[in-house]
Amino acid sequence: MRLTEYLLPTLKENPADAEIVSHQLMMRAGMIRKVAAGIYTYLPLGLRSIRKVEQIVREEMDRAGAMELLMPMVVPAGLWEESGRWEQYGKELLRIRDRKDTEFCLGPTHEEVITDVVRGTVRSYRQLPLNLYQIQGKFRDEIRPRFGLMRGREFIMKDAYSFDLEDAGADTAYEKMYQAYQRIFKRCGLKFRAVEADTGNIGGSSSHEFMVLAESGEDAIVSCDQCDYAANVEKAQMRQEQGSSGEGQAELQKIDTPERKTIAEVAEFLDMDHSRLIKTLLVQTDTGEQLAVLLRGDRELNEIKLCRYLDCLEVVMLGDIAVEELTGAPVGFAGPVGLDCRILADLEVQSMADAVVGGNEKDVHYMGANPGRDFSVEAYADLRQAQAGDGCPRCDGTLQMWRGIEVGHVFKLGTKYSEALGATVLNAEGKEAPLVMGCYGIGIGRTVAAAIEQNHDDQGVIFPMPIAPFQVIITLLNPKDEQVMQAGSELYQQLMDAGVEVLLDDRDERPGSKFKDAELIGIPIRVTVGNRALKEGAFEVQKRLEGERMMMPVAETLSWLVDEVKRQLME
Amino acid sequence: MRLTEYLLPTLKENPADAEIVSHQLMMRAGMIRKVAAGIYTYLPLGLRSIRKVEQIVREEMDRAGAMELLMPMVVPAGLWEESGRWEQYGKELLRIRDRKDTEFCLGPTHEEVITDVVRGTVRSYRQLPLNLYQIQGKFRDEIRPRFGLMRGREFIMKDAYSFDLEDAGADTAYEKMYQAYQRIFKRCGLKFRAVEADTGNIGGSSSHEFMVLAESGEDAIVSCDQCDYAANVEKAQMRQEQGSSGEGQAELQKIDTPERKTIAEVAEFLDMDHSRLIKTLLVQTDTGEQLAVLLRGDRELNEIKLCRYLDCLEVVMLGDIAVEELTGAPVGFAGPVGLDCRILADLEVQSMADAVVGGNEKDVHYMGANPGRDFSVEAYADLRQAQAGDGCPRCDGTLQMWRGIEVGHVFKLGTKYSEALGATVLNAEGKEAPLVMGCYGIGIGRTVAAAIEQNHDDQGVIFPMPIAPFQVIITLLNPKDEQVMQAGSELYQQLMDAGVEVLLDDRDERPGSKFKDAELIGIPIRVTVGNRALKEGAFEVQKRLEGERMMMPVAETLSWLVDEVKRQLME
Repeated sequence: MRLTEYLLPTLKENPADAEIVSHQLMMRAGMIRKVAAGIYTYLPLGLRSIRKVEQIVREEMDRAGAMELLMPMVVPAGLWEESGRWEQYGKELLRIRDRKDTEFCLGPTHEEVITDVVRGTVRSYRQLPLNLYQIQGKFRDEIRPRFGLMRGREFIMKDAYSFDLEDAGADTAYEKMYQAYQRIFKRCGLKFRAVEADTGNIGGSSSHEFMVLAESGEDAIVSCDQCDYAANVEKAQMRQEQGSSGEGQAELQKIDTPERKTIAEVAEFLDMDHSRLIKTLLVQTDTGEQLAVLLRGDRELNEIKLCRYLDCLEVVMLGDIAVEELTGAPVGFAGPVGLDCRILADLEVQSMADAVVGGNEKDVHYMGANPGRDFSVEAYADLRQAQAGDGCPRCDGTLQMWRGIEVGHVFKLGTKYSEALGATVLNAEGKEAPLVMGCYGIGIGRTVAAAIEQNHDDQGVIFPMPIAPFQVIITLLNPKDEQVMQAGSELYQQLMDAGVEVLLDDRDERPGSKFKDAELIGIPIRVTVGNRALKEGAFEVQKRLEGERMMMPVAETLSWLVDEVKRQLME
Repeated sequence: MRLTEYLLPTLKENPADAEIVSHQLMMRAGMIRKVAAGIYTYLPLGLRSIRKVEQIVREEMDRAGAMELLMPMVVPAGLWEESGRWEQYGKELLRIRDRKDTEFCLGPTHEEVITDVVRGTVRSYRQLPLNLYQIQGKFRDEIRPRFGLMRGREFIMKDAYSFDLEDAGADTAYEKMYQAYQRIFKRCGLKFRAVEADTGNIGGSSSHEFMVLAESGEDAIVSCDQCDYAANVEKAQMRQEQGSSGEGQAELQKIDTPERKTIAEVAEFLDMDHSRLIKTLLVQTDTGEQLAVLLRGDRELNEIKLCRYLDCLEVVMLGDIAVEELTGAPVGFAGPVGLDCRILADLEVQSMADAVVGGNEKDVHYMGANPGRDFSVEAYADLRQAQAGDGCPRCDGTLQMWRGIEVGHVFKLGTKYSEALGATVLNAEGKEAPLVMGCYGIGIGRTVAAAIEQNHDDQGVIFPMPIAPFQVIITLLNPKDEQVMQAGSELYQQLMDAGVEVLLDDRDERPGSKFKDAELIGIPIRVTVGNRALKEGAFEVQKRLEGERMMMPVAETLSWLVDEVKRQLME
């Protein structure tokens, strides 16, 4: 494309509402424009990157034997009632009514629809295995849409669904998709990790997230420095060290801790390590029960682990008034001794001895508290958040922490949806058997945004070649100069003929502003065509990533570019 | 693809709710499945045809200099309020509210959104001309969704929007799109016509519809047998013959017409031609005004012409009670003589003399009625529907009638949206000027459905090669026979290597049922691989359209197929 004929509205300033780099750069590079909160138009440049990712995804899905179809965005409530999610799914599910007052939703995910398609078309195990996917606009009514395409409301997703007769087949399907995802993100030119993850409101028995590594990532993930264990902290386990302290020696003793409420304040006051204290968290479940959760003083609660243990959807911390009602003391002094509610504790607490706990009385704590002796715990479970330095749960290694952006998620669903919707096939014995399912998502727009989070500098985007909107940009220093225009246009045409995706900056602007734009939009290779160099029979060539400029004889430039594009595509 | 691994749920019977051939065949061929009224899943086979049409559209849009972008499906109400269509557009606009109770709609068309994009990104006439398009899922809440993809609620559309500084540029853009549409439908292998059309609720000054010719088409179109005039009957004009009758001779005279209410009954009773009678239609506009419209007895009212003349959105016929209140007589005897309301008449009525009209009294008509003398007409206008046999408005030719399916529509919008939304650019004199717009739509799914309406027989679909989901199908008579499987698989692989899209029917079914499926899904060329022919070193080849079977030496089949596919793509 010639830039004089292209819609490329670059911006000099970061938009006020763009908090993270990818959002800022996608706005500034003229890739997207906001239509409403979390709703964007993909401008021509942005759509080109999106389509590149789509095409890589499509090729790898097809290669893995999946078949593309397309389901609607507007989905009847009835299907969601069958699965039970019409009630369960929160307000992210946008429920709407048509002109006849029939209820629908905008599909945020399509387990129900695909299960309906399959129950209506597949009758025999001989039609299995089956893996169906689509690339489609979805809608989730996020309460706080933000970060551009990273957490939008309307977004493009690839979602695939596998159907098998038995668990073994479903495991194979899962493994195939896992491998396909590895290839996809590798082909996109991204640094990423697959990590164990929680299954959330999709459900199922196990899942992995594919995380693009980036400091700005919303997710914290851990990985072992020795084996290949890696997990989202939401889900991450750690090695449980053997308790060594044995019996408590000290007597339980009340101490004054005036105005010392937090673990840090109490520990400093007593000159003890945080790990000698027990943290007492008071929470309420979505069923209304109040309970206490004990953790070592230097640990954090993992609410997702707690919810899974309690089999509830949500826990919230008790408010000030509820704390006072339950403990008889203001916030900051809660402890398990004499506390009148169910008490759970993290596994680590079991081996703590002579600990400090709250006294359930203003400005009072206990020293020398011992579980079992001074208070009773209903159950010990893994309830804490993993931290850097924790032991790996699989080997002797140590866990490291990373930040990541979730771009893909694969789930083993089991028979959750097929049983709810009655999607069965006749097995070899002629008996009805529910289909064993898996589901596999990739956020297409988010992958582009994550790629930018991972690949940028102060000047703008640095696109990996495979998902760059254009592969080469030719910048004409002075397009009014006939020689410059002719040499540039010739190279432009030759590159197009060779199948290279090329942008010709033929705008009548100052060179500095054209260089700035070229750097901002992150085209991997720039060719500068200027009068002075031309006189010496040369173009100037620069790779966006390395930044070094090279003079290159005009006659050699075409083949060098074609080779370099190919090389970077293979990397 | 191997059919044993493909989702192809063909049906033997027509679904009960499928009224037209394309709907029946798309269901039976396993191309689509219904999710809700007017909402479908495109199964793998159907999606392949849809993608073929999309790709042709995309290539021709790009060739015409248009740029692809992608707008959201969920559109904020505010933009539609700016254009005034939030109120004007009927219930087909599905209005929804998000979790924060903010109003949105599901985009049925995107003039507002694109105008917003352009006003936010284009500032100078030097950025023009601009043509932006998308291929996207849209939603129109049709009151009676039916006919499968022909009149669905969620559907895929290509919509393009052009922006120019002046009318001349806009005319050029329109002409470019008109030519691109000609190429698109030709490349799809369809018989079609471009016709003048009404602009409906999109607005603008003029428009053309692209009609695929098919007897089952919902639209009636006329075309001249001598010149290239063609129009939708909604819009079609006709040559107005010079009135010859001059002054009326007869006196106005009441006659008894007992129980004769319709034109046919009165004409028969009086033994006169229908054309000697004047039909008096009593209508009410959406503003509540009641008026009478006069037509020659053998003509039909064109309500769209009437609405345009009255500048209203809708007219409805008066009900029985209202007729009696206005005329003093039951339905069937209304006439203009002494009628107390505004009276309009079709141009033809002006030259009628000594006509028969209703008497505004039960069982009474007038003979010898003359406009001007016996009743006054406020205005004469072209208000009637064109008919076969009418004179062409452009030449001496005669109009013929066709049935068609609207698959594309191009509009000159003028400044309707740019003025409403304040989309201006600075012109060469540095002054703000509103953009002159055009918009250009193609129904992608409907194009596939229309292709099937035009190309089928009793056995099923007969896909034109360019939009066939697969180009060749290889039917193995007995896949358990090793030789058959080997010869078939080899050809299958060779065809794929040659870039031919091929389906291998390796299912363990009776040959008859495989032949039926192959014919049903309409793959243009079938190769049958059987034991008997193989012994003679031959395959059997059959074109779906011609039906003749040919024996072809195995060694020659590959290159014949490659050539034949190419030939049919070029046709």
